[in-house]
This record gives sequence, C-alpha cells and structure tokens, in this order.
Amino acid sequence: MPNPTAAMLVIGDEILSGRTQDGNTHYLAGQLTQHGVSLREVRVVADDHGAIVAAVNALRAVYDHVFTSGGIGPTHDDITADAIADAFGVHIGIRKDAHDLLAAHYARQALEFNTARQRMARIPDGATLIDNPISVAPGFTIGNVHVMAGVPSIFQAMVASVLPGITGGAPLVSRSLRVERGEGEIAASFGALAAEFADLSMGSYPFISNGRHGTNLVIRGTDPALVETAMARLTAMFPPA
Amino acid sequence: MPNPTAAMLVIGDEILSGRTQDGNTHYLAGQLTQHGVSLREVRVVADDHGAIVAAVNALRAVYDHVFTSGGIGPTHDDITADAIADAFGVHIGIRKDAHDLLAAHYARQALEFNTARQRMARIPDGATLIDNPISVAPGFTIGNVHVMAGVPSIFQAMVASVLPGITGGAPLVSRSLRVERGEGEIAASFGALAAEFADLSMGSYPFISNGRHGTNLVIRGTDPALVETAMARLTAMFPPA
Repeated sequence: MPNPTAAMLVIGDEILSGRTQDGNTHYLAGQLTQHGVSLREVRVVADDHGAIVAAVNALRAVYDHVFTSGGIGPTHDDITADAIADAFGVHIGIRKDAHDLLAAHYARQALEFNTARQRMARIPDGATLIDNPISVAPGFTIGNVHVMAGVPSIFQAMVASVLPGITGGAPLVSRSLRVERGEGEIAASFGALAAEFADLSMGSYPFISNGRHGTNLVIRGTDPALVETAMARLTAMFPPA
Repeated sequence: MPNPTAAMLVIGDEILSGRTQDGNTHYLAGQLTQHGVSLREVRVVADDHGAIVAAVNALRAVYDHVFTSGGIGPTHDDITADAIADAFGVHIGIRKDAHDLLAAHYARQALEFNTARQRMARIPDGATLIDNPISVAPGFTIGNVHVMAGVPSIFQAMVASVLPGITGGAPLVSRSLRVERGEGEIAASFGALAAEFADLSMGSYPFISNGRHGTNLVIRGTDPALVETAMARLTAMFPPA
C-alpha cells in the first residue's frame, strides 16, 4: 500500500514579503518522511481570507492530510480559523474547553483574559483541539486539516501532538553519494540505474564548492534492502577517489 | 496603479523529502519586494510532469509573473523544460544558440559535450534565454514564466538577469517595532491602528525569547510617508521602556 500523502499550507504575508524565512516546511518535511507520510505539495499564501479558503479546499480534496501554519493568534491579522471554518462551511465560535484552558492560563499569570485573547478560543464546529504545551492557545484538526501556529517552537510542539494520531507507512529511506564530477558526466549511467530501479526515486543535486563542480546523488525508497542494493551498484559505478 | 504580482514555483523532491531547505523563495521574495513586485503565492511540487504542468498553468493564469526554480540540468530527473513546453502546448528541441553557448563552454574546458549536456540546450519554441554567468546552461522566459536553475548561486544570478527587464512598481517599504509584551495585550490598539490605515498592511509576529513573550509589529506599504506617519503613531502607543 502506498504511503499516505500530505500537503503543507503556510499562511503569512511575512514569508511572501521576504521578512521571514519559513522553516516550518523543512521541519514538517523531515518529520513526515520519518513517519512514512509522503509530502507532495507546499503552498504559501497571504493573510487573505479568499486565498486561504481556496488553497485549503484545493489541497484537502487531493491529499490525505493538510497541515497549516500561521494566523491563529489574537491579532487582527490572524484570520486562519475563520477561513478554515468557511472552507468547511461550518460555524465558528468560542468553544468552552478552549476558553477554559486559556482562562486558567491567564489567571495563573495574573493577566487579563481580554477580548483579543478570547479570540484564540474560537474553534470551528466539529474540530478537535491540538495540544499546545508552550503557550496553551490550541490548534485544531477538522476533517483532514491540521491547523497549527506559525511560531516555530509552537509549530513543532503541535506537530509532535498530531503525528502519533496519524497512520504512517514505511519511512522513506534516503542514501546519498557525493561525487566530484559534474552532473553532465554522470547523467547517462545514473539515468540508466534509475530506469532499472523503477520503484526507487533517484535524484541528482549539483553543487559548486571552491569553484569545482560536484554532484550529490540521492537514492530514496521505502524498501531499505532495495535502497542498499541500488546504493552498492551506484558506489561501484563511482568509486571514491 | 497596484504593483505587478508574482508567484514562485519550486520544483524538487529534495525539498519535499526534507533533505534540502529551500532558500530560493526567501531570496526571490526580498528581491521582488525591493523591485516593487508583489509576491502573492509560492508552491513547491515534486519532480512530476503532471504536477509541474498543472501548477504552471494555474499560476500563470492568475499572476503577472511566475518564477520557477529547479529541474533544468542534464540528468533524468530534470524534467522542467519539457513540462513547461507541455504547459504552453509548444514544441521543445535543441536550440542552436543555446547549443552553441554550451558547446563553446565545454570545448574551453576540454570536456565532452555529450548527450546529457546537450539536453540543457532543449528550449521550448518561442522562449528567450536567461543568461547564466556561472555555469552557462541557460534558463528561459516563455510568456510570463521565468524558468531558472535550483542551485542557489545560479538561481540568484538568473534573477539578476531577469529583474531589470520586468517593470516594477513602488518598492514595498517595511518598518517594525519590537514590543516586550504579548500579542494579546497589544491586539486591540494595534488592530484599531490597522483599521485606520487601510492602505497599509500591518502584521504582528510573536516571539519567545529567554522564556518571555514579545511581539514584532510590522507596518508595510508603498507610500513611505504614510508608513512613517503610522509608525509614529505606533511608537507613541508603545513607547520604548
């Protein structure tokens, strides 16, 4: 059975303006690969209601899981929860369990549980909460969409809360060989090997280091023995200098 | 007149598997912001013909410009040029000017201009070449789609070749204020300011530093004087400690 598939949706003007470099996608990609879930597509959209609704609906129809990051805080630009509710056509309002978690959290800190903070208890009907051990304000899962915070430490904690509940497949195993030759020299034999091992994915990644061209050859697959067999053939083709 | 819009399409299994972190999007985002082009969407897709064709056609219909990175080298997994030709419904074949550039390059290095390397001269009909001062193999522009290499140094050089030919608008100006308070405390007044300055974009980005919550407040716009006016109001609201 093929591994379940996933997409990531990053929500944030700050990524598109170049102010912030998104690192959540790279983190999630590594976690999903280990968990045996195949990340197939990533999209980054602006803090724009229509753009979020359209992207969520496009992705949840095609992939087994959709993970989102960003836009679930207390400020006016945090519009993700409302957009998700619209995408699913469900009501959204302050939910008691989320409200009580947050009320207790702010009471412990002697901070006012004001209207802005209460916004973070707004959860679409039918969702289940995602635990946030860092700053309490929960994410949520609705259907096959997992809605998480954009702050990296909170995003990572929420991924850790969500992944154990997702059935994964065989982890993707990856092996690589660094070759001190340009891609053009190794292309024919590497391509022939890739054609022979059609169940594996083989990629070639050129680099320039100290003015010299080299290539990282990567073999990926979910059958570790097959990956090793192909790797042995590759190493024999391009023995270390 | 609003600034022209753009999308970025990153092509690469190595990003989706978590092997490599994409940095080209962040670079392009910064360059476009300076050039007065508004980056509105990013997608990352696999080395998959159908996925590339679908994404290119979706994005080029909506945005003024589409920039792609990855998949234009000599190896079997470099399928971007063929996918772009299919997306536009045009023929692709070895083009004389690209062929001659590459032939001269390999002759200078006394390297064989083999079949794999000749693949890099395959250019869709009707495209114009994008100069590659680093490793010669050109990118190309067809319609509103700019097809560039994935290797960061080459991608950056190609962006430098393309941008001067693109009409930009007013550069997006961005100012930020770091506030040592949680988002929930500043949300109401910051939201009111954002509502008052509807021509500006205001974003709030929480951080956790040494266990304390703080917020970066960002004001963006294409009218520098208006940004400064709003920034003065913001600084008066949250004076430095």
